[in-house]
Amino acid sequence: MRIRPKIYLAGPEVFHADAGDIGRRKKDLCAGCGFEGLDPADAEIGPLGEGCDRLIYRANMRMIGEADCGIFNLTPFRGPSADVGTAFELGVLFALGKPCFAYSNDSEPLLARLRREQCVAFDATKSRWVDAHGMAIEDFGNVDNLMLEACLAEQGYPIVRWQCRSKQRFTDLGGFQACLDLAVRHFSATLVAETVTADVDASI
Amino acid sequence: MRIRPKIYLAGPEVFHADAGDIGRRKKDLCAGCGFEGLDPADAEIGPLGEGCDRLIYRANMRMIGEADCGIFNLTPFRGPSADVGTAFELGVLFALGKPCFAYSNDSEPLLARLRREQCVAFDATKSRWVDAHGMAIEDFGNVDNLMLEACLAEQGYPIVRWQCRSKQRFTDLGGFQACLDLAVRHFSATLVAETVTADVDASI
Repeated sequence: MRIRPKIYLAGPEVFHADAGDIGRRKKDLCAGCGFEGLDPADAEIGPLGEGCDRLIYRANMRMIGEADCGIFNLTPFRGPSADVGTAFELGVLFALGKPCFAYSNDSEPLLARLRREQCVAFDATKSRWVDAHGMAIEDFGNVDNLMLEACLAEQGYPIVRWQCRSKQRFTDLGGFQACLDLAVRHFSATLVAETVTADVDASI
Repeated sequence: MRIRPKIYLAGPEVFHADAGDIGRRKKDLCAGCGFEGLDPADAEIGPLGEGCDRLIYRANMRMIGEADCGIFNLTPFRGPSADVGTAFELGVLFALGKPCFAYSNDSEPLLARLRREQCVAFDATKSRWVDAHGMAIEDFGNVDNLMLEACLAEQGYPIVRWQCRSKQRFTDLGGFQACLDLAVRHFSATLVAETVTADVDASI
């Protein structure tokens, strides 16, 4: 039997009105590349009520434990940066030593985005840009906080910068597919070995 | 010699104009409770330039590796949610099995904050609040994303909700001190044992 590596599908799409459909499309793309996608939106929690947050958390952590790697949608969510839940999950999978692949559907650097969206100023005394609270804005050309980007780059798979139309920022899966391609490259040795075995099995 | 457990001091204060001073105050509070605070702002990186993001990342990860636990400032940062770098680091320390304590200097629930700050609507067909992108807003009474809050609660130390004046949101350390108190409780068995040993040492 061919083993299909499992991919945890992280991102703010779980909040989308079409979360189920987006998850199905992601899982289909995974299957097409020899993977099994684990979608947090599939967790069967029952009617939402008090304490359900803990049940959802446990279901997600079970999937993370089961996953062989993760694909993270770090597209800006309700502000200039990624969804904090997704950032947390990236930290968990990374610390567990599992390969992490990520994309952002907004390729604009963080500083440029903040200059466009928020009230910022250049602090000449410190030669740096600051926001309305006087907090320094990172200027490394990254699309988001350096901890997220550097962790991915150090693993060998820098964040995929994808640009799509604003209305499709939570439904466009071009960046997701690019991450899948990285996952295929990462697991290729395993997949090649299994394919050879499967071909031999089929021919006898 | 008394061993002082090390606390990784995570939060967006590293971007503050008074980052050094805030860090010193945090480390003093840690020392007063028998801990050693590890402040990411102390990393000696040299003049910022190309590639410095990777050096800062590595310095932070070294501190995280060295730490026995972490205190995380999850106060909303440039939007309705916590700093994504801090959320990532929470995930890392948590996955490494290290006790995590966290506070937010904005005690307002996420939904109430979004209703105040952003364009939201009630989706009667699905009985839930949605943002301008039609993305569902969590309604569990948490101050932020459920993954952050539930991970803390499941460890036994729910997030400390602290309310301070808006201007002090990145300098007020009342919530930080409350987290330190939780850390003292967590490590109390160890500290008591060491104190007894130290007293015996001093009397002979």
